Amino acid sequence: MHHASDILLTLFIVFVAAQVGGEIAQRLKLPGVVGEIAAGCVVGPSLLGWIAPEQVATGTPLDVLAEIGVVLLLFSVGLETRLDDLKKVGKTALLVGVIGVLVPFGMGALWAHGSGFGWDKAMFVAAAFVATSAGITARVLQELGALQRMESKVILGAAVIDDILAMLLLGVVVSLQGGEGFDTGRLLLVLLEAVGFIAVIGWGGSQVMRRKSHWLDKPRHAQSPLLIALALCLGLAYVSTLFGLAAIIGAFLAGMIASETRQQHMLEKQTQPLLALLTPFFFVVTGSKIDLHELASADALWMLLVVTAIAVASKLIGGGLGALPLGRRAAAIVGFGMVPRGEVGVVIASLGLAAGVFNNRVYAIIVAMSLLTAMVTPPVLAWLLRHTPADAGTDSTDTPPR
Amino acid sequence: MHHASDILLTLFIVFVAAQVGGEIAQRLKLPGVVGEIAAGCVVGPSLLGWIAPEQVATGTPLDVLAEIGVVLLLFSVGLETRLDDLKKVGKTALLVGVIGVLVPFGMGALWAHGSGFGWDKAMFVAAAFVATSAGITARVLQELGALQRMESKVILGAAVIDDILAMLLLGVVVSLQGGEGFDTGRLLLVLLEAVGFIAVIGWGGSQVMRRKSHWLDKPRHAQSPLLIALALCLGLAYVSTLFGLAAIIGAFLAGMIASETRQQHMLEKQTQPLLALLTPFFFVVTGSKIDLHELASADALWMLLVVTAIAVASKLIGGGLGALPLGRRAAAIVGFGMVPRGEVGVVIASLGLAAGVFNNRVYAIIVAMSLLTAMVTPPVLAWLLRHTPADAGTDSTDTPPR
Repeated sequence: MHHASDILLTLFIVFVAAQVGGEIAQRLKLPGVVGEIAAGCVVGPSLLGWIAPEQVATGTPLDVLAEIGVVLLLFSVGLETRLDDLKKVGKTALLVGVIGVLVPFGMGALWAHGSGFGWDKAMFVAAAFVATSAGITARVLQELGALQRMESKVILGAAVIDDILAMLLLGVVVSLQGGEGFDTGRLLLVLLEAVGFIAVIGWGGSQVMRRKSHWLDKPRHAQSPLLIALALCLGLAYVSTLFGLAAIIGAFLAGMIASETRQQHMLEKQTQPLLALLTPFFFVVTGSKIDLHELASADALWMLLVVTAIAVASKLIGGGLGALPLGRRAAAIVGFGMVPRGEVGVVIASLGLAAGVFNNRVYAIIVAMSLLTAMVTPPVLAWLLRHTPADAGTDSTDTPPR
Repeated sequence: MHHASDILLTLFIVFVAAQVGGEIAQRLKLPGVVGEIAAGCVVGPSLLGWIAPEQVATGTPLDVLAEIGVVLLLFSVGLETRLDDLKKVGKTALLVGVIGVLVPFGMGALWAHGSGFGWDKAMFVAAAFVATSAGITARVLQELGALQRMESKVILGAAVIDDILAMLLLGVVVSLQGGEGFDTGRLLLVLLEAVGFIAVIGWGGSQVMRRKSHWLDKPRHAQSPLLIALALCLGLAYVSTLFGLAAIIGAFLAGMIASETRQQHMLEKQTQPLLALLTPFFFVVTGSKIDLHELASADALWMLLVVTAIAVASKLIGGGLGALPLGRRAAAIVGFGMVPRGEVGVVIASLGLAAGVFNNRVYAIIVAMSLLTAMVTPPVLAWLLRHTPADAGTDSTDTPPR
């Protein structure tokens, strides 16, 4: 009967740390998410050591809870996003996604080559500069109630495109490591599959949900719409990994098609307690992956500063350029919205370490860069959003479709 | 970015299996929980093998999710239970708890000794007959909206006492295995500590919550009452394991003291989606622990029948005797409410296996007995509750205290 006690203590620590961190951040007028990530850094190996690196490794209970947390977060963001809204900003989002991948990749590769990596390894390092973590930006947008702004739609659309391109790029870069070339035909197929999956689920799912939302009420369980939506969320999160995409892309799609149902408003309300319990695990676990000890030298800190500056500037330029037609303020919001690398950068860095492409220090620096971008962005984004009037693209989903 | 895909598939399977099982059960006029446990049996090693025993071992993500699920379940049951209600039925609950432990222990020990175990080992086997799993009964009572009935209060109060006694008994039995005696003074201390913990938290916590519930609204987060209540739930679940008690006892206490706040009604509503997502993991994981292959012989099946009959009869007699002053129907409801052994029996059986007290077959039989009692009880309990008018002890907590 004692078997669960250690993990219960860990759950308690993580959960309470998140609340304390979030509260402090909010009192300092920062987004709560910054406090939650910082809390992870405090309870993690850098400072208190209450959460050991082994406890947040892939497949551990904390890692799985974190994954469920971010999956639910993107599901709830999807619930506030209609396909039609995304379509309106489709062209801009595509531009933001594509330029926002090319510029960081180029700048990252140049920097890495300049620091002594061969071109093949430099491109691997560059891949870690590319992928945006939608979770952190989504949380900030949600905290500020800004998900209905046009800039938010652009960011979300671009995040989907960003994930597809990052997946392809990583595939190319990994195949280059062996010194072999890569198969353009196969790559095209992977691209087509991913785009096809998103199009079929997004478009077809929206159609079905719009017409058949009474199906959600058929089962006997009083909460059956929520249960079906959650099953859809877990299912699509899994299927999207089969297409090489992040689980959160599938969860976002599940939320987006569920936003077409007449139960959308109720689902949004019921999702709130789930986010309250589970998303803190994601942000604290993310924060706990920073190990400040690895960075405790002037050299390492300098390198970190440079890498982070490149990561921020390149994404800001890339994303901002794509969104320039919307005006300069909107372009800045979109650009900063794409800056956080978060857990995606951590994953790519781990792949690079495992593949022997770079050493522990470069690994620590890329991880720290990923998390720094996640910490630095939210306050800037919040400031920009508060000081930029929402534009005509704003639209409310509070009215259900029928 | 693929790292989470296996576990996502598992989560999807478990979640969907629970919904399908629950739906089928409800259409057959059975409590949904029976369907969820049966679904676990179907996807587990007995039939489909989609969930392997290693995936539900202690400390795995599924095990932790199951634990969180049952902790939240008992928290929500606590939310519908006032300390004053429990006090009203205190004497009856104490009787039910004590006699409901002694009779199964005695009958279990006699049977085990009769089947060839020495007295020391027979008492270990008997310990597996003792502890009631509050989770299964609580879920049935909640499903039927019967938590406000007097019988339910008796069952919940008795479950707390049952857990204290089972913990002490297990301590004694384990210390007897070495052939050593046991230290009565130490035992008394353990008893006092556990009772003291429950009394201090239950009484003191209720007082504080009644007077200071505005504290829950102090943090900035919009859902701060829920967040504080959940932190309390995880914290007390952990602390109760330090006193040798089950985590669900602490969670129940946390819910009980939170029921004194003016936010109680909102908390109850917000807990529903959490239960919808997480309790299925508990019941499916419980069901997946049955391995029918171990029982595939006439001998084993016969032994299982006998063991289950003794387990049901002894708890029914013990619990029912204690509750007899309430009338025969009420006594039957209380008696059956105490029958499920569920995961508690599984835990004790695992201890016995690890300690070499019994072999794989006896282990499989005790596990199967624990789960059979969990499957058999809900329909009987539901039938009894539907056909017994609720008595004067009924009371509604829909009106908040202030």
